[in-house]
Amino acid sequence: MVKRKAAAAIDIGGTKTIAGLVEDSGRILAKKQIPTILSKDPFVHLKKCSEILEDSLRQAGLAPTELSGIGVSAPGLVDPSAGVLLQAPYAGWENVPIREWLISVWGSCDIQIENDVNACALGECFFGAGRDYESFLWVTVSTGIGGGLVIDGELYRGEHHIAGEIGHIVVDWDNGRKCGCGNKGCLEAHASGTAIGRLTKERIEQNGPHSELAAFFNSQNLEVNAANAATAAYQSIGDAVDIYQQAGADIGKAFSYAVNLLNPGAVIVGGGVSRSFDLMEPSIRKVLRSAVIGESNRDLPIVKTALGYDAAFLGASSLVLSQTEKN
Amino acid sequence: MVKRKAAAAIDIGGTKTIAGLVEDSGRILAKKQIPTILSKDPFVHLKKCSEILEDSLRQAGLAPTELSGIGVSAPGLVDPSAGVLLQAPYAGWENVPIREWLISVWGSCDIQIENDVNACALGECFFGAGRDYESFLWVTVSTGIGGGLVIDGELYRGEHHIAGEIGHIVVDWDNGRKCGCGNKGCLEAHASGTAIGRLTKERIEQNGPHSELAAFFNSQNLEVNAANAATAAYQSIGDAVDIYQQAGADIGKAFSYAVNLLNPGAVIVGGGVSRSFDLMEPSIRKVLRSAVIGESNRDLPIVKTALGYDAAFLGASSLVLSQTEKN
Repeated sequence: MVKRKAAAAIDIGGTKTIAGLVEDSGRILAKKQIPTILSKDPFVHLKKCSEILEDSLRQAGLAPTELSGIGVSAPGLVDPSAGVLLQAPYAGWENVPIREWLISVWGSCDIQIENDVNACALGECFFGAGRDYESFLWVTVSTGIGGGLVIDGELYRGEHHIAGEIGHIVVDWDNGRKCGCGNKGCLEAHASGTAIGRLTKERIEQNGPHSELAAFFNSQNLEVNAANAATAAYQSIGDAVDIYQQAGADIGKAFSYAVNLLNPGAVIVGGGVSRSFDLMEPSIRKVLRSAVIGESNRDLPIVKTALGYDAAFLGASSLVLSQTEKN
Repeated sequence: MVKRKAAAAIDIGGTKTIAGLVEDSGRILAKKQIPTILSKDPFVHLKKCSEILEDSLRQAGLAPTELSGIGVSAPGLVDPSAGVLLQAPYAGWENVPIREWLISVWGSCDIQIENDVNACALGECFFGAGRDYESFLWVTVSTGIGGGLVIDGELYRGEHHIAGEIGHIVVDWDNGRKCGCGNKGCLEAHASGTAIGRLTKERIEQNGPHSELAAFFNSQNLEVNAANAATAAYQSIGDAVDIYQQAGADIGKAFSYAVNLLNPGAVIVGGGVSRSFDLMEPSIRKVLRSAVIGESNRDLPIVKTALGYDAAFLGASSLVLSQTEKN
């Protein structure tokens, strides 16, 4: 029996981390999720991840020499060529030499590191909804909004490695909300999960404590956030549907810009808020159709992630799998 | 003496055509400009272009066998793989099999055809201001506004060959002007040469016949168009400067979207209106700085074409030059 090589993958998230093994085909051989250890010393967490990989190899009956490499995905600023996690604000880590550390533990093997949003795009490209397209835009709608570009089958990082910043496209020039980046009116400040939560709070205040929307949250003592606003919208409570349609219209504006520029094969959306995508899709489509040129752009496929929470984990594996192209 | 091969190039424009020979280095060996013959039969014009190429070869002392190929640039809808000019509204031509016709005249040689805006982007990529960047956005600001994308040194055409449509990005969602494409608020409808001419007419009407701006045009019996409005602006007449700054602000919006998405090395601008680029640059820069993320994006080089009216001609030659990569 010829054993196919497998890749080790570590997807470090702000709160949880997934580590395990993936075959060339994208089949997950082993996978374990743990809370991200937010120790000041990043190597405490990396050591734990490394132990999971050792367990995974044992579980899969593979020797370390049968690994094609280790792919790592992390949110924050990453230098893929140096293999360094430059900034990870959620953990307070800076300039973590991930490749160097992993080589010190695993010996000289292929170790690649990528930003989590780009890793998601790669995951979809090789194993998910992106396989059907030469070029596509990946968009994460979660606490924030991020994007990744696959152009002619390869990740495109930009001249200075910051391409794909769809979350910081201005969608409101006149009454733009303050964004974490310092600018005003960014898509992220208007349509992220955080923004939808804030929009919901504002609606409740506007409508007053006796409104249907306020009653929904108060009666069940629910936190006012995007997920619960979606629950309200699915039950057609108050103007919860409006909130999602307003966010959808802003997302539609940003999509229209990207689509006119890139004529992508598709936009693929993921992240927590994408679970409520059907609440936003009608308004995204309406805006998009009024603001793009060409039939292929008007009928653009907008699809949900095929990989869900495994997108970045699988993308991390694709960085070192022997059958995938690397950038 | 080893002779370097040369490419023949034909740049068909709506009113004029340039045909001639270009060396691998981008040096123009021969070049002739003629009015585009808008005969119903496109081959009347192509025959004339073909004769110029024969003259050019004689002039350069080259045999037809020493041609690396013939590159053709044309405005309108083009199918590069089939070598067909699908639609050329300025001439009423449809489905012109340019490659087939040129092969019937020149024998079996490499014949490539490309849209004029993409040809300009290629020209800058190989011989102009684009040589310094891996990736850049080319923007033609002329009667209309078009764009071309060079990504990692190659022209990117999009999944359905309509990438780069920056002219149809909506820059005004609330009071958008009707665009030729059928949508409202497109950049082209707000900041092209045609739009600037219309803005100028409107200002004159608003300000009344005794305004400084009206007097400028009336006293010299000048046509109210973008070029003459630029002359007025350079002389600080009336609010002519405002008109260009307004157009610049709209261009800045569209640039900010493109720059956040693509993180290009530069934006390179050409077309007739780019000669008045310095009138618009302050407002482009102001909007851009307020609406992009990352230092490299805020300090983005925005440069004028290094090739002027030869951009598309040189780009056409690059389609068949032996030392340039083809897509």
